[in-house]
Amino acid sequence: MTPYSCMSKSELEQQYAAVLESYRRCQAQGLKLNMARGKPAKAQLDLVSGILTTLQTPEDCFDGDIDSRNYGELAGLPCARVYWADVLGCKPEEIFVGGAASLNMMCDIVSRAFTHGLLHSDRPWCREEKVKFLCPSPGYDRHFQIGQFYGAELITIPMTPTGPDMDMIEEYVKDPAVKMVWVVPKYSNPDGIIFSDETIRRFANLKPAAPDFAIIWDNAYSVHEFEGEYVPFPDIISMCRDAGNPDMVYEFASTSKITFAGGGISCMAASAANIQYFTGIFGVQMISYDKVNQIRHVKFLKDKAHTLEIMKLHASIMAPKFRVVSEYLNREIAPLGFAHWVDPKGGYFVSLNTMPGTAKRTWQLCKEAGVVLTNAGATFPYGIDPNDSNLRIAPSLPPVEELEKAMEVLCISLKLAALEKLLNP
Amino acid sequence: MTPYSCMSKSELEQQYAAVLESYRRCQAQGLKLNMARGKPAKAQLDLVSGILTTLQTPEDCFDGDIDSRNYGELAGLPCARVYWADVLGCKPEEIFVGGAASLNMMCDIVSRAFTHGLLHSDRPWCREEKVKFLCPSPGYDRHFQIGQFYGAELITIPMTPTGPDMDMIEEYVKDPAVKMVWVVPKYSNPDGIIFSDETIRRFANLKPAAPDFAIIWDNAYSVHEFEGEYVPFPDIISMCRDAGNPDMVYEFASTSKITFAGGGISCMAASAANIQYFTGIFGVQMISYDKVNQIRHVKFLKDKAHTLEIMKLHASIMAPKFRVVSEYLNREIAPLGFAHWVDPKGGYFVSLNTMPGTAKRTWQLCKEAGVVLTNAGATFPYGIDPNDSNLRIAPSLPPVEELEKAMEVLCISLKLAALEKLLNP
Repeated sequence: MTPYSCMSKSELEQQYAAVLESYRRCQAQGLKLNMARGKPAKAQLDLVSGILTTLQTPEDCFDGDIDSRNYGELAGLPCARVYWADVLGCKPEEIFVGGAASLNMMCDIVSRAFTHGLLHSDRPWCREEKVKFLCPSPGYDRHFQIGQFYGAELITIPMTPTGPDMDMIEEYVKDPAVKMVWVVPKYSNPDGIIFSDETIRRFANLKPAAPDFAIIWDNAYSVHEFEGEYVPFPDIISMCRDAGNPDMVYEFASTSKITFAGGGISCMAASAANIQYFTGIFGVQMISYDKVNQIRHVKFLKDKAHTLEIMKLHASIMAPKFRVVSEYLNREIAPLGFAHWVDPKGGYFVSLNTMPGTAKRTWQLCKEAGVVLTNAGATFPYGIDPNDSNLRIAPSLPPVEELEKAMEVLCISLKLAALEKLLNP
Repeated sequence: MTPYSCMSKSELEQQYAAVLESYRRCQAQGLKLNMARGKPAKAQLDLVSGILTTLQTPEDCFDGDIDSRNYGELAGLPCARVYWADVLGCKPEEIFVGGAASLNMMCDIVSRAFTHGLLHSDRPWCREEKVKFLCPSPGYDRHFQIGQFYGAELITIPMTPTGPDMDMIEEYVKDPAVKMVWVVPKYSNPDGIIFSDETIRRFANLKPAAPDFAIIWDNAYSVHEFEGEYVPFPDIISMCRDAGNPDMVYEFASTSKITFAGGGISCMAASAANIQYFTGIFGVQMISYDKVNQIRHVKFLKDKAHTLEIMKLHASIMAPKFRVVSEYLNREIAPLGFAHWVDPKGGYFVSLNTMPGTAKRTWQLCKEAGVVLTNAGATFPYGIDPNDSNLRIAPSLPPVEELEKAMEVLCISLKLAALEKLLNP
């Protein structure tokens, strides 16, 4: 195949006619397929059915002397704090175990920062003239939405193959109005890259002007390899401590993609001082999170080693789907030279950068052929992709045969949108 | 026995010597007893062990076509919305099902009111010069703490045998700075009274000056009778609608004292317009609450009728404990005429009003004899009981034999504190 960039106008016109014909055939099938959200497949949820019956008797509900069925232990059951410390590589006293959604804890942190301030805030952020959040992009739409909801100014930071552009971040944090940066450091959403050691080191060593600058380190995919072996990842809590920034980072994780999506347990890891500060704050809003679900999870997942065994089972379902995505893109799109992507080895997404100015159109063409993708632009602050280029593909939910159909539609739509653009620049 | 008020000084001195002697004997026992918080007893938690194994297979996790194990259904599983509508007497579309803690949803409502405003707010409450909350007292300390945390001015409203002083509330709501009133309408915490029909009617018909005035109707004990039959209770949502105040009330409930404390499911009931407004707001902080726990609860509790059967089992454990409290107070304290209380038929507390100026001292005496009560003052805004008279007794947790010892200590401490006061006025 010849790259589009090397084709003459008449060749492009020929291509356009052929692709349009294919597109119409797709449309005629009346498909209804969804690659929009990072939802686990039913087969993955079925894999962990053992967790449903892990707790059988009252005795099963005890962590030592502590009855998980009664009030208390706001920061989480000791066994759950030990579990998360094992998974993330920090200390149990640096863990606060939460409810089913780590996103909710992130939102609580931002909410309380605005109304009351963080540990080192001079004042609540609502009393600041301006609050700015750094948003490496493409990134996670729900992160950006929280910042937008609280009226922070969202600043786009480009992503590189080793993580966010750290030169820019180091420069921006000199502004005391810059209060937060939001990242997914391992198998980033959606790029699927692992931040390099150098990037992580530079994060831990940031010298922000704001005394209460916070890194939201959303380690959502810490054990979520689907190709190859588990990749060890440094503990950001101790790295920040060693760099003299002990209270600068809030790390989050959950079992939403280990056990049940939205039915798991979450955690925040932070310095012991931050855990103490937020234990006081969370104590206003609740007596304790669901500790029965905490002990259910700990008894089922046991420890990091056993969790990694379960992740291998997930991988056996996830990997074939990502291979379909990769195969279609490499076969249908790569030779045409108008788009690029990274084939990830973990996480839940493929980040596809198509010809600038065609992401929205591609999304629309997919939709009109019955394939729903994450909204074009969603991976950027305010839902605006300055290049209109990035599309997030979430292949986990559909079965392989549906995924193949969806990828066929996506590839045809990508071509059609690119050809339209080339023919009507 | 002669009431203290009819005794001469020398009689009081004699009494004092005898009571002090008893107190010292108590102290010598080295007791360690707790009547501080409304925690269910282990026997109650064991009663509902069936819920641990209600879900066995993936198929058990489906509500129709909806897989509770995956993301989605922010407002709750349809079956869980139907369940709560049945329990509370409202419509399923008026229910938002939450996580393990209804308190967390109340706090979220207040938090978002301050940063964004409620449905009919002219501006976020943080932009108001002053925000005032009405706090019928004695009341629930955790309600007051939320208001205090957000800097609202807390106004004490006296309780009467039929509910809060409605004349005062009707007067206060003419002030546009008055934004909320917090009540536990059935088996109020701690008085254990049921608001009269007239009180409820007056609540529904309030004419507040603030367009976004909100009633926090914490129906925590809606099915929590421990003596006698279930007492039907009107649906405040439809009553407010009929009174032309459809969006004025937010009702809360949970299964924390039906299944597991802090491990159950909660709900908010409100007008469909409010549910829609808060679905938008909660959508920023999470994808969905724990729906696996929702379906686990619905399959175990089934409906209101079956829930009431389970509550009968709880009652069989609770009632003997409240009888111990009642017996001790009626035998040891009633004839002395210096304290009064109501024997409740539901809820989790006995509210004891001792001689004014002696609640703190009684609490201290109990503590020094090894019996922990809820802090004196905790049932009032800012932890300050203007009469220093109210003590909240929470008899649910200790076994009967411990409770008898604790009540013996409490009665002796009550007498000693009263005699000290009478002898040193």
